[in-house]
Amino acid sequence: MGQSDLFSTDPILSGKTADIYLARTQDILKAEGLNPVVSMEVFPSGPGILCGMGEVLDLLAAVLPPDAEVWALEEGEPMEDKEVVLRITAPYQCFGLYETAFLGILASESGWATAARECVEAAGDVPVISFGARHVHPDVSGRMEYAALVGGCAGCATPAGAELGGTQASGTMPHTLILIFGDTVEATLAFDRHMPPEVSRVALVDTFKDEAEESLRVAQALGDRLWGVQLDTPPERGRVTPDLVKEVRARLDQAGFPHVKIFVSGGVDLERLRLFAAAGAPVDGYGIGSAISGAPPIDFTADIKAIEGEPLAKRGRIPGITPNPRLKRVVPAP
Amino acid sequence: MGQSDLFSTDPILSGKTADIYLARTQDILKAEGLNPVVSMEVFPSGPGILCGMGEVLDLLAAVLPPDAEVWALEEGEPMEDKEVVLRITAPYQCFGLYETAFLGILASESGWATAARECVEAAGDVPVISFGARHVHPDVSGRMEYAALVGGCAGCATPAGAELGGTQASGTMPHTLILIFGDTVEATLAFDRHMPPEVSRVALVDTFKDEAEESLRVAQALGDRLWGVQLDTPPERGRVTPDLVKEVRARLDQAGFPHVKIFVSGGVDLERLRLFAAAGAPVDGYGIGSAISGAPPIDFTADIKAIEGEPLAKRGRIPGITPNPRLKRVVPAP
Amino acid sequence: MGQSDLFSTDPILSGKTADIYLARTQDILKAEGLNPVVSMEVFPSGPGILCGMGEVLDLLAAVLPPDAEVWALEEGEPMEDKEVVLRITAPYQCFGLYETAFLGILASESGWATAARECVEAAGDVPVISFGARHVHPDVSGRMEYAALVGGCAGCATPAGAELGGTQASGTMPHTLILIFGDTVEATLAFDRHMPPEVSRVALVDTFKDEAEESLRVAQALGDRLWGVQLDTPPERGRVTPDLVKEVRARLDQAGFPHVKIFVSGGVDLERLRLFAAAGAPVDGYGIGSAISGAPPIDFTADIKAIEGEPLAKRGRIPGITPNPRLKRVVPAP
Amino acid sequence: MGQSDLFSTDPILSGKTADIYLARTQDILKAEGLNPVVSMEVFPSGPGILCGMGEVLDLLAAVLPPDAEVWALEEGEPMEDKEVVLRITAPYQCFGLYETAFLGILASESGWATAARECVEAAGDVPVISFGARHVHPDVSGRMEYAALVGGCAGCATPAGAELGGTQASGTMPHTLILIFGDTVEATLAFDRHMPPEVSRVALVDTFKDEAEESLRVAQALGDRLWGVQLDTPPERGRVTPDLVKEVRARLDQAGFPHVKIFVSGGVDLERLRLFAAAGAPVDGYGIGSAISGAPPIDFTADIKAIEGEPLAKRGRIPGITPNPRLKRVVPAP
Amino acid sequence: MGQSDLFSTDPILSGKTADIYLARTQDILKAEGLNPVVSMEVFPSGPGILCGMGEVLDLLAAVLPPDAEVWALEEGEPMEDKEVVLRITAPYQCFGLYETAFLGILASESGWATAARECVEAAGDVPVISFGARHVHPDVSGRMEYAALVGGCAGCATPAGAELGGTQASGTMPHTLILIFGDTVEATLAFDRHMPPEVSRVALVDTFKDEAEESLRVAQALGDRLWGVQLDTPPERGRVTPDLVKEVRARLDQAGFPHVKIFVSGGVDLERLRLFAAAGAPVDGYGIGSAISGAPPIDFTADIKAIEGEPLAKRGRIPGITPNPRLKRVVPAP
Amino acid sequence: MGQSDLFSTDPILSGKTADIYLARTQDILKAEGLNPVVSMEVFPSGPGILCGMGEVLDLLAAVLPPDAEVWALEEGEPMEDKEVVLRITAPYQCFGLYETAFLGILASESGWATAARECVEAAGDVPVISFGARHVHPDVSGRMEYAALVGGCAGCATPAGAELGGTQASGTMPHTLILIFGDTVEATLAFDRHMPPEVSRVALVDTFKDEAEESLRVAQALGDRLWGVQLDTPPERGRVTPDLVKEVRARLDQAGFPHVKIFVSGGVDLERLRLFAAAGAPVDGYGIGSAISGAPPIDFTADIKAIEGEPLAKRGRIPGITPNPRLKRVVPAP
Repeated sequence: MGQSDLFSTDPILSGKTADIYLARTQDILKAEGLNPVVSMEVFPSGPGILCGMGEVLDLLAAVLPPDAEVWALEEGEPMEDKEVVLRITAPYQCFGLYETAFLGILASESGWATAARECVEAAGDVPVISFGARHVHPDVSGRMEYAALVGGCAGCATPAGAELGGTQASGTMPHTLILIFGDTVEATLAFDRHMPPEVSRVALVDTFKDEAEESLRVAQALGDRLWGVQLDTPPERGRVTPDLVKEVRARLDQAGFPHVKIFVSGGVDLERLRLFAAAGAPVDGYGIGSAISGAPPIDFTADIKAIEGEPLAKRGRIPGITPNPRLKRVVPAP
Repeated sequence: MGQSDLFSTDPILSGKTADIYLARTQDILKAEGLNPVVSMEVFPSGPGILCGMGEVLDLLAAVLPPDAEVWALEEGEPMEDKEVVLRITAPYQCFGLYETAFLGILASESGWATAARECVEAAGDVPVISFGARHVHPDVSGRMEYAALVGGCAGCATPAGAELGGTQASGTMPHTLILIFGDTVEATLAFDRHMPPEVSRVALVDTFKDEAEESLRVAQALGDRLWGVQLDTPPERGRVTPDLVKEVRARLDQAGFPHVKIFVSGGVDLERLRLFAAAGAPVDGYGIGSAISGAPPIDFTADIKAIEGEPLAKRGRIPGITPNPRLKRVVPAP
Repeated sequence: MGQSDLFSTDPILSGKTADIYLARTQDILKAEGLNPVVSMEVFPSGPGILCGMGEVLDLLAAVLPPDAEVWALEEGEPMEDKEVVLRITAPYQCFGLYETAFLGILASESGWATAARECVEAAGDVPVISFGARHVHPDVSGRMEYAALVGGCAGCATPAGAELGGTQASGTMPHTLILIFGDTVEATLAFDRHMPPEVSRVALVDTFKDEAEESLRVAQALGDRLWGVQLDTPPERGRVTPDLVKEVRARLDQAGFPHVKIFVSGGVDLERLRLFAAAGAPVDGYGIGSAISGAPPIDFTADIKAIEGEPLAKRGRIPGITPNPRLKRVVPAP
Repeated sequence: MGQSDLFSTDPILSGKTADIYLARTQDILKAEGLNPVVSMEVFPSGPGILCGMGEVLDLLAAVLPPDAEVWALEEGEPMEDKEVVLRITAPYQCFGLYETAFLGILASESGWATAARECVEAAGDVPVISFGARHVHPDVSGRMEYAALVGGCAGCATPAGAELGGTQASGTMPHTLILIFGDTVEATLAFDRHMPPEVSRVALVDTFKDEAEESLRVAQALGDRLWGVQLDTPPERGRVTPDLVKEVRARLDQAGFPHVKIFVSGGVDLERLRLFAAAGAPVDGYGIGSAISGAPPIDFTADIKAIEGEPLAKRGRIPGITPNPRLKRVVPAP
Repeated sequence: MGQSDLFSTDPILSGKTADIYLARTQDILKAEGLNPVVSMEVFPSGPGILCGMGEVLDLLAAVLPPDAEVWALEEGEPMEDKEVVLRITAPYQCFGLYETAFLGILASESGWATAARECVEAAGDVPVISFGARHVHPDVSGRMEYAALVGGCAGCATPAGAELGGTQASGTMPHTLILIFGDTVEATLAFDRHMPPEVSRVALVDTFKDEAEESLRVAQALGDRLWGVQLDTPPERGRVTPDLVKEVRARLDQAGFPHVKIFVSGGVDLERLRLFAAAGAPVDGYGIGSAISGAPPIDFTADIKAIEGEPLAKRGRIPGITPNPRLKRVVPAP
Repeated sequence: MGQSDLFSTDPILSGKTADIYLARTQDILKAEGLNPVVSMEVFPSGPGILCGMGEVLDLLAAVLPPDAEVWALEEGEPMEDKEVVLRITAPYQCFGLYETAFLGILASESGWATAARECVEAAGDVPVISFGARHVHPDVSGRMEYAALVGGCAGCATPAGAELGGTQASGTMPHTLILIFGDTVEATLAFDRHMPPEVSRVALVDTFKDEAEESLRVAQALGDRLWGVQLDTPPERGRVTPDLVKEVRARLDQAGFPHVKIFVSGGVDLERLRLFAAAGAPVDGYGIGSAISGAPPIDFTADIKAIEGEPLAKRGRIPGITPNPRLKRVVPAP
């Protein structure tokens, strides 16, 4: 497709995802022959980890003229409440329509990256895998996983997200596999038979039997080929507790399987991460779902701060550009 | 494209957005020659308004064989905590890969629809327009607006969302238009000159001058052509208060403009809706952003409850299908 | 032993358990030749279930002269805060030394009976067994169990307590028995082989395996001879949850064992009883430990209210006997 | 009586105070010919002061064979939450029946000793006398007082408790003595006439008159023979306040009685002790009742951790003995 | 003095107590020759009992011309939050200077009257005397007592206040009188000797001795001439408690003095009034100090709502007079 | 008037504002021929800034005989809870009647001074003007303003208060002035025309238009003659916010008026002062109303502590004078 086609078919470039009042503004300005150079600043409604800036800059690159000027913070940088993270100086008609899109990209992705960072910090040295793709719409689940990786996660669950983050998807086995085989050991042996060697063997051990008993059964069945066990005890059974992790660790060690790791999932959130850390539970990895995927967006606001170089702003805002030495010039490339 | 192409290119059908462990499960079951008929049930982690079911049933229609059996609640129905909203009985390999997608669709959309319903109920008889597209990633902003409409909103801001909801996008004017014109009355007159007659003239009155003063200025300038004014006072100026609405109403009435309506936006959430209602503020419409768009997803869970007709479940769940007389049979069509 | 021996050897009658200042008071009054008839009233520091009165009246019967007058509430009656539950009119030297003892009897036993009553009411129709003997000193554990029975418990754990309450001790099996046999089914079969038929077969099912799995194993092994299973899941595994009870019930029913009852123990307290009741968990009996045995005593106070028929009281109290139509005359027997 | 008599008559040794399921376990094991050497560990449900261990070791000495091995913390030592305080390795049939008793002894006495320690620490340098015998059943009031002494109290109220603690009982005078004499000074003079010189003269000064007035009256009547006054103001009159103590101290000093001490009682608990300390009230001694005697037991748990030297434990516990370098070997005597 | 003298010497009429900016406004308007007829409305910042209106109307009567129009609520009426209680329509220069004064009069007096009303309602049928003159500056203590009477008090302590309220001052006796006599009975007998018969004999009974003991002493000394006793126990002795009142009542009754009333004072506030009422304490009168005298003023605001008949208001207020059918026309007299 | 006239006409000296029981006490003592030298101590019910002592000492100077002895803290000194701030040793009849007055003076004025001090400290380096005269009765508004000055305020609003504090009254302009002129600029120009040069030109900028717009208009109209603008935004418009101050500052600076100061008023209290300080809002002055004028009085108590040199006190107080090295001798002058 040619570029003009793209502007008629791409959901963002075509303006279909733009607030209708922005399209109407374009129409009015065109009819009046107005296209001033404006300086627009973008800032968040709270502190966090900036994410989505790469996608935003790609969008701007597609629409801004060569003489536009863009300053921005970098992807993954921490940002403060109301700190300017992006400043665009360009003829308004070039980019005004895309305000809805670039604010939305930053909002969703910064929300996820910020939650991921909090979880990663609470987990200390233990790696965190994003397992929440199933809790957001598939049209953005990859973006959510990408943001989780930007926030510090060590892996994610879907190929779509892994591709955006430049890595490989991670996974263990679903309860369904075990239910179909009717036995955890049988399912794990089948997994071991058919999966390529680079896939870690991690047995889910809470489907049919007690977690400690099942952990020993799969360890005895797979021996050194078993990378680890996954504890995912459901809420009806009290979730995974720090003491359960300690007990499984002790029973595995006593039975001669100190190499088998313990991976914990199921309702893990900030509070539980801190509980596990405080109890010194010997966890080797966490799978975290809605504590990251359900994070609220961090709203961003775009403000016109100058027109044709003259400071100006709506009531409530200070006219003129806001100094921020952390901003780097990205357009034109310095 | 043919259907097989779709399965290799569509992000959902290709499995790119699926948890990797589901793809691996497919591989293992194929290698073992296992493809039992399973009954899978889907239930939410809390009460709310079910949304996304239409999209889910479309997905299932694309992959299920003719003899599959599907029971579901309808789009927009209220659902209780842990109520089964969907039951699929079919050979597992046909649909197992799509669990991530259909759970995610329901999670995001039901979260938004539920928040919208709460706002709509708090607003009483006053219509609510969803204005939060700018606070979520553009890849799902249309779905968010669709869900808001399912939840009871009277309108939304983007063409993408309006199309999904079978309506027209709504909007007023951005501060930017007024800043470029340098005066609210000038901007409103230009809006009036160039917009088709079916677009309501709603003047945003907090950009340069006091809201009450500006309301009278635009009313005098447009007279009967003015549908209403929009109060969007920023937090730095104390947001829109119930008393401000009452005062603007009184001043408009006293000046002979009782026909001019008052539309309120800017940080409107459940708490503020209740405040306005309790104060009897004469609001004619609300624009609501992140109180809907920032709603957390309502997580859903999928459980295998029978294999080849035999009740079975993982620890923590009760084997066998869960009776729910509210479910309607959707496949095969009754 | 003769009665005089008893007064020198019995810990209570000898005064060894009396506050030393009461013994000194006896000495001083004797030396001064004073022994007035006093009216002493006893009242609690809070509402509850009166318990220990029988033991107190036995003590008074051993020391009061024939012309003494005693009024009392009955064992097990509810009492209000500061309600007079006992009034003794007799020469002071006959009984003054025993004030420490009769206040202490009422305090401890009323504390336990009151806690038991609260648990029994929270449990609704489900019988409650007192299992807390192990949490109080064995010199009073029988009295604690007696008070629990007075408070409404359906049974208790030790022969000493059961004897005081006129019933038989109840019990299931300890984890130790199962640990020694190395298997729950083996232990339960041994229990079944050697216990007389009147002892109910209740298998403890959380020692080695998952509770649901083990419940089915013992049900299959004992069939109709199995009265029930006991769930006593430790805190490290999330305690017994209402959902666990529902699941075990469903799995037992589905496997053809609807006659097997479910007995719940382990940290059961008022809060958890209310949780189980609200969730409609199908519990057939509760074993309750420290929620009863650890109840604080309800302190009682004894006040002189008249001397030789003349109203008199210390500062803070109203002189003269306190009317209470609920009191019944017990000495002399009416 | 011979030892066999003791096993049939002593409430503990006979098993009458044991949970019935322990007796049944003995019967089953005997019938099956099982008597393995087990290692049992005992630990508390919270931190505190260990008390009752002497009584427990006496019980074990009566029943364990010469080759048994016992490790324990010492009476009065602080213990941490879940710290092993006792480990018994012996043939199970020798001691299993007494689990109820030794857990109960430790529970009640450690509860009291821990509360006493807290009060003693809150009182700073001011001695604390345990006055709560009247608030617990006389069958254990001596044990309560013994535990209070272990916790740091300087004295107790009954001969039974004092004997267990190797000291003399302490006491002042009851309101009854004063009510019978009809005047505080008369009662105090009678006390002085008849009590041996080693008994301190402490006058209770709140019975008939204002505390300050009465303090001066008794001081004038007894002069140097008066050791102190006791303030025990009832709740109806606002209890003893720090200001009352200061005022009585000042009035005594001004009247020439600086040697007369002030002893405070009546509802003194941790909160009030801290209040008095913060106010710098010149208290010379506290009498504390239910703040010690009403302390809840600290539950203890006994776990089998090895059988015939093989590590083993129920679900939720880690098999094998728990290292604790603080334990000292007590059987066989090292 | 003539009226013009008054305008130069009276602190209010001279403008000395007016905000300086009002005097400056007078000067500017005079210099500009402006003296429009304005409508000014006065409303409170919260609900309560309106007090001070009489004084305000007197002030207005002194300054307004015959053709002015004044509408007002009546002294002592309940008023709602922001309800217009006063509307003045007159040439601004006549009364503008006195805004500070009339707002201040209403603020202080309505604050006191409102607090008094709350106390009176909490006291139920028991009369309340205002005793707080000593807690406010003597220049307004009479006004405070007047407001307390308007709020429902049955009496007050100073002649100045009583005169304003059209009644006689009430009082008992100070501790000083008793301290000088050295004995409560002596002081009370002197009081009885020298006071005219219409003054009730109320003995203060907490100065030297226990309140109950002293109550009986004064009752025995004065017999039928004693109207009542006053309990004023200081905080250092636990204040007056409901139980103390009950006990004194009982002891007086038992001693044959049922006619002696009990008057309670000392830190009595809303909370304590409710405590006494809930306990059914037989109180015959309360003396209340800072719970009334320390009440915060209820601020009032004056708004210009019309000039020369034309509706007008500052931002935040609705132009034009506010309808309030409760207002009565007071000037010109209807 | 002669002095004897004063004693019959002055509201305080005549005893009209005294508690009636004090007058009766005078009568009784005279009738009994009693007039002992007493030592009376006065102390507050809480910590704060002592104010009113000058007025009290003036009162005492008018009534005490030459040989009286008075010790006192100085006006404006900090005082601790219950610290003796005044001790009078003199024949009781000379001054006893005035206890009500001197306690009330200290109570009201210390309450105001203490609140003022808290505001001044919260405002940091920004001067605070007392604007609350309109919220207290005009008979004490001057005293309130005097106390605010003692507490640290830089100015006050009425001539009466300024005179007591030895300063000039401060003020800006009322909304009324602007409403009558119909325009803020016109009103400010008139103010400028007619006010003497020593009166600062401060324009109130929230009456008709947006504060920022109006600030620029008055700055342009008056130029260097404008001292500052006053922000007094009403609650209906969200009050003055820190961001509004920052924005007005920025817009004034950008427009070339850095010399124009910003004065903030309207509901300013401790909480808002701290908010402004934390936000670094560039405020140049605060006008504070009811946060000072509505402060509750700090009650004072007067106690007889010695009679004719003999220590003595009522129950609850310690007899004899209380040492306080901070007291200075004021009578006879040292």
